[in-house]
Amino acid sequence: MANATSSSELSSSRVDRMIAAAVQKSEELGVNMNIAVVDQGANLKAFRRMDGAWLGSIDIACKKARTARLFDMPTGMIGQISQPGESLYNIEVSNQGLITFPGGLPITDQQGTVIGAVGVSGSTVENDHLVAQAAIDTE
Amino acid sequence: MANATSSSELSSSRVDRMIAAAVQKSEELGVNMNIAVVDQGANLKAFRRMDGAWLGSIDIACKKARTARLFDMPTGMIGQISQPGESLYNIEVSNQGLITFPGGLPITDQQGTVIGAVGVSGSTVENDHLVAQAAIDTE
Amino acid sequence: MANATSSSELSSSRVDRMIAAAVQKSEELGVNMNIAVVDQGANLKAFRRMDGAWLGSIDIACKKARTARLFDMPTGMIGQISQPGESLYNIEVSNQGLITFPGGLPITDQQGTVIGAVGVSGSTVENDHLVAQAAIDTE
Amino acid sequence: MANATSSSELSSSRVDRMIAAAVQKSEELGVNMNIAVVDQGANLKAFRRMDGAWLGSIDIACKKARTARLFDMPTGMIGQISQPGESLYNIEVSNQGLITFPGGLPITDQQGTVIGAVGVSGSTVENDHLVAQAAIDTE
Repeated sequence: MANATSSSELSSSRVDRMIAAAVQKSEELGVNMNIAVVDQGANLKAFRRMDGAWLGSIDIACKKARTARLFDMPTGMIGQISQPGESLYNIEVSNQGLITFPGGLPITDQQGTVIGAVGVSGSTVENDHLVAQAAIDTE
Repeated sequence: MANATSSSELSSSRVDRMIAAAVQKSEELGVNMNIAVVDQGANLKAFRRMDGAWLGSIDIACKKARTARLFDMPTGMIGQISQPGESLYNIEVSNQGLITFPGGLPITDQQGTVIGAVGVSGSTVENDHLVAQAAIDTE
Repeated sequence: MANATSSSELSSSRVDRMIAAAVQKSEELGVNMNIAVVDQGANLKAFRRMDGAWLGSIDIACKKARTARLFDMPTGMIGQISQPGESLYNIEVSNQGLITFPGGLPITDQQGTVIGAVGVSGSTVENDHLVAQAAIDTE
Repeated sequence: MANATSSSELSSSRVDRMIAAAVQKSEELGVNMNIAVVDQGANLKAFRRMDGAWLGSIDIACKKARTARLFDMPTGMIGQISQPGESLYNIEVSNQGLITFPGGLPITDQQGTVIGAVGVSGSTVENDHLVAQAAIDTE
């Protein structure tokens, strides 16, 4: 069956719930977000730009999701060690551009395997992170 | 109010209906599609990859939507005049890559103004076009 | 265990056997090849350039492997329908460059699911295809 | 004979030994690495991604190898003088992206001539460097 996904794959139905949760959280916060979801291979699975969200955040949301999957960690963690003088300084020029401030989080399956990532951009990095976390918190 | 859109803008609610219609049409046809929607500025508004859809069609769906808005016409029309010997030969290398076969259609408002475009990729170009048309046919 | 791969994942040990088989076939044919293998997400898993192989074929081998996974079919099949006047004319400008002549083949697991692809470049397309097929034929 | 390499060229057999040594060192350290080797022309000669290694380190390993050959020095040395206020500040944006933290080392022949480089990415920069050094230490 063409639509079948293995248990560890990121299904469209879960992605729908993630984006709905992210939009709802954004509305609670009163912010307009770009929300991107990538799959296990770091390839785009879904994207949503809320009305009024920054155009410049389209690419940033996509890059946050991609970055979180490429290194299987929150984007903000990479940012802490890519500062001047730190061990991964200027890692951002790799992979056709990484975003290393908060707003990107890995998605795991029930065994803890990373099966994708979500990236959010459009407000402060604190809000971006909160909205990404709301997406992750869906079942 | 941050979420307000002018009458000629492509709202998230319309985009949601377009993508839902495209998914429904894809399911009727038994195909797995990538569906992209861009706004008046040719910037990505929403994207959906159905489970099992080709990875290579992510970029093609986005480029079809972008191409249709960049020239305000169905992508297939450009393809007819970009063949060897024709007037727009190899226009595809412009704009960081155009896709000029069917599956991209402009979205117009009630006054006929182009306010965005939809791009579909994942099956034959005939099916891609049918699914894009189903998205356009939503109110 | 960090090295664990699920049954449908492309393991390093299989990739090693694939590359060894490709090199052996190339030596039988008396040609020097570039051989690339990508995983399920179309990300590079392994690459080998035989001594004396064309430098220009590094990128082509990688793009053949990527193309075969992006569309889950032999690269040469796409080339047949991307000719002038055909339905996918100039699809090659998408995905940061596709290669649509023979030499790229999908890798499937025992259930027939595509879990990666191999791309070979360095000789005639007939030889490229033969060497890719030798890699696929390994268990 | 097409397979012949001059004494100062980086042969496939040496590259095989380098990658095997790098994999062995990685296993000793309990880490999953991406390992890239480039030749005298800074063109990719071989690449290996161990099972479970970060996807984002594919590009970084390749860029470390490339960077080490482009400037004939360990990548970490460049990083020291590319910090804010230093003489090569932001050199990373050149050459389609350099990586200037440790993990890339030049390969020399017996006369000390640089004939290529190895790049390793997938763990701390200290581990990346140790694994690159293990590759260099092969005969």
